[in-house]
Amino acid sequence: MSAIDALVTSLPEGRVVTDPDVIDSYARDRTFLEPGKPLGVVLATSRDDVVTTMRWATEHRVPVVPRGAGTGLAGGATAGDGTVVLSLAKMTAIRELSPADEIAVVEPGVITADLDRAARAHGLMYAPDPSSYEISTIGGNLATNAGGLRCVKYGVTRDSALGLEVVLADGRVLDTGRRTMKGVTGYDLTGLFVGSEGTLGVITAATVRLRRAPLQAPATFAAEFGSLRDAAAAVSAIIAAGCQPSLMELLDRATLVAIDDWRHIGLEASTQAMLIGQSDAADGQEVASRMEQLCMDNGASFVAVSSSPAEAEELIAVRRMAYQAKERLGACLVEDVCVPRSALPDMITAIEATAVRHGVQICTVAHAGDGNLHPVFIFDHGTVEPPAEVWAAADEIFRHALSMGGTLTGEHGVGLLKRRWLALESGPVVTEVQHGIKAVFDPLGLLNPGKAI
Amino acid sequence: MSAIDALVTSLPEGRVVTDPDVIDSYARDRTFLEPGKPLGVVLATSRDDVVTTMRWATEHRVPVVPRGAGTGLAGGATAGDGTVVLSLAKMTAIRELSPADEIAVVEPGVITADLDRAARAHGLMYAPDPSSYEISTIGGNLATNAGGLRCVKYGVTRDSALGLEVVLADGRVLDTGRRTMKGVTGYDLTGLFVGSEGTLGVITAATVRLRRAPLQAPATFAAEFGSLRDAAAAVSAIIAAGCQPSLMELLDRATLVAIDDWRHIGLEASTQAMLIGQSDAADGQEVASRMEQLCMDNGASFVAVSSSPAEAEELIAVRRMAYQAKERLGACLVEDVCVPRSALPDMITAIEATAVRHGVQICTVAHAGDGNLHPVFIFDHGTVEPPAEVWAAADEIFRHALSMGGTLTGEHGVGLLKRRWLALESGPVVTEVQHGIKAVFDPLGLLNPGKAI
Repeated sequence: MSAIDALVTSLPEGRVVTDPDVIDSYARDRTFLEPGKPLGVVLATSRDDVVTTMRWATEHRVPVVPRGAGTGLAGGATAGDGTVVLSLAKMTAIRELSPADEIAVVEPGVITADLDRAARAHGLMYAPDPSSYEISTIGGNLATNAGGLRCVKYGVTRDSALGLEVVLADGRVLDTGRRTMKGVTGYDLTGLFVGSEGTLGVITAATVRLRRAPLQAPATFAAEFGSLRDAAAAVSAIIAAGCQPSLMELLDRATLVAIDDWRHIGLEASTQAMLIGQSDAADGQEVASRMEQLCMDNGASFVAVSSSPAEAEELIAVRRMAYQAKERLGACLVEDVCVPRSALPDMITAIEATAVRHGVQICTVAHAGDGNLHPVFIFDHGTVEPPAEVWAAADEIFRHALSMGGTLTGEHGVGLLKRRWLALESGPVVTEVQHGIKAVFDPLGLLNPGKAI
Repeated sequence: MSAIDALVTSLPEGRVVTDPDVIDSYARDRTFLEPGKPLGVVLATSRDDVVTTMRWATEHRVPVVPRGAGTGLAGGATAGDGTVVLSLAKMTAIRELSPADEIAVVEPGVITADLDRAARAHGLMYAPDPSSYEISTIGGNLATNAGGLRCVKYGVTRDSALGLEVVLADGRVLDTGRRTMKGVTGYDLTGLFVGSEGTLGVITAATVRLRRAPLQAPATFAAEFGSLRDAAAAVSAIIAAGCQPSLMELLDRATLVAIDDWRHIGLEASTQAMLIGQSDAADGQEVASRMEQLCMDNGASFVAVSSSPAEAEELIAVRRMAYQAKERLGACLVEDVCVPRSALPDMITAIEATAVRHGVQICTVAHAGDGNLHPVFIFDHGTVEPPAEVWAAADEIFRHALSMGGTLTGEHGVGLLKRRWLALESGPVVTEVQHGIKAVFDPLGLLNPGKAI
């Protein structure tokens, strides 16, 4: 009996898919990366399915690529030849939601926004909101330590993860963390698994922290600036004034032009950047007015503040259009550097210079409050892989971010896509230690090989 | 040449202390635990001193016990026979403080409150504030992942740690983390070192996150309750109403009696619990009034709200007296269980029943917003170690906390003191994994042996 047949036999009926076309659709994420030919896909419905799969993988020495919804942007779920894809997308139970303790216990296939909605029914929210949160899963968010728009105020996925149930490479079950707000018993295994991109174990449940949902819709402002530096100065002023925006996004001119070409937002010739911010505080309207004033003080040419939820939606809509507007222009390589906040204007200026130098179109949106920039490289739809000049430009941007004390990836992860730059950031001791940790959890190297570290 | 002589020779003059009395004072923390006889104490003044010490330790196979100010309450810095104590208390430089990026780079010997004061000069604060923060060091806080009073709003030490410079057991230097607000390159080594109690490496610098300091003094309330359950219900109501207290402490009757016996605060016979809370928000006075109302709604017999910083100080002073009031009664074993917030009243009730059952005096103060309780066991000053009935009562309380989904230690750490209960919480797979991680960083088991895991 072949290895894959042994797996089919050991799991309940219908759990393993071997149709090549279906396999291919489960072997990709949202990058351009072409997968190999996996042996099959396990559609796990329970922890037991995962345990069985990992025991089988260990026995047969078959690499396993765990995945959520496949919305990743770094190739973390791209599956290679001879692997088995382990989909957690069908494990969708919210096992518990405790308003009194402000926690939920969820399975990895729960859609991020679904958990948020379930929490809101109790006046709570699940704070992490990656842009894909209507289609991404909690498991994928945990694997990549996903960020999002609200994390400028509420932190990233790791900040909401209290405990995990994990199936290790050999099928043993590990329970990490706790149900309490604080706890210091032993090493922080929960934090270690969050962001490990499926290379240390398979998360089969998570205890996550919920937060009080704001009682009213957020107040929103949108400000136009004639210079990037002014916009960045406004960001610093807003943070320094303690406004605690719940969202603060910066769009560069290239992005605004792409949106204007598509939706005709009446972009002024002099506008170099737009800053969109929100406050979800009880006195949000007042805070938004304060942020408006700080934008004016820092040279904004025009600022609008919403006076109703509908107007707020209109202002934020520009931000939502950004990605689709870029997709109209060509294929997109979405990058993800993060720099100390004070380096934001220098970084954007450097990106613009790189674009000119390499003749590459780059549109940048930044989670400005976090210093996290997404330069999007546009290239020909016809090309499967980004052309050499895109990689050359990306390389220059990565190096520049690192030279400013930044990082290669703020929230998307390393996956396959960034492994070739990893050594620039991590250095030999970090690399050795990371591989040592990997060997503790997965001595045979079966879990998502070639990713993250 | 003896091993310790070799160390004296390899370090600059004056770095190694071998006077037995001085050694003894560096071999203790604030527990009753009697240390062994270390070979000497290294008073490190630089990373190089630490590197030299660890290289020597590896060469000579001498265990090393790193320490900050020795304010720990779990025996994490208690040094055994034949060890060398490595004090980081003289590494006190604040290497950098960047208001624009809201970060500081500090050495481990910086006193926690000194960093906070340095930050406040720029309108910022360092949020973690363990009760000992006027005498504790950042290094010790990182080693134990210290909590404090403000962490109900601002999180624990790990939430403020962005990156670390660490000397490994063999003297190699490891740089973890980043200077940016977000970053997902590789595994979260920073989070792994925080709370590892000096068993994985010696922290020689930390990049920490600063936060905007509130612009005004906090508004404070103090409420008296005739029943613990009512007080706990008020805590839940305050959290559920989104008041975001920056401090919320619960004192049980035993604690109040101890304070009243000492300072005559006019304790009513019917008062079973006192709840003290603060808001440092811009509209703090209003929030404090809302919290007052929620206390009244939940059966408080009396509530005072401060109308000036001086009055706020008076109200909070009761909380500050708690520990000294207990020390007047006898020797103290300070415990540190944490339970899901909804289990707070049951946990306090269980502690009171345990006290009666074992004939032990227990006074409890809780960081109520976090569900973190400090039952303090009082015993005879003459006794070196807590008597059997204290341990029996503590054992019962630990087991009860665990049965409610709680943890053995919310913020003090495992140290030596809680190792015998560790297996009750962690289970065999966690234990095996923790030891595997330890072996990656410290294969010879030289760093703070016998602690934490």
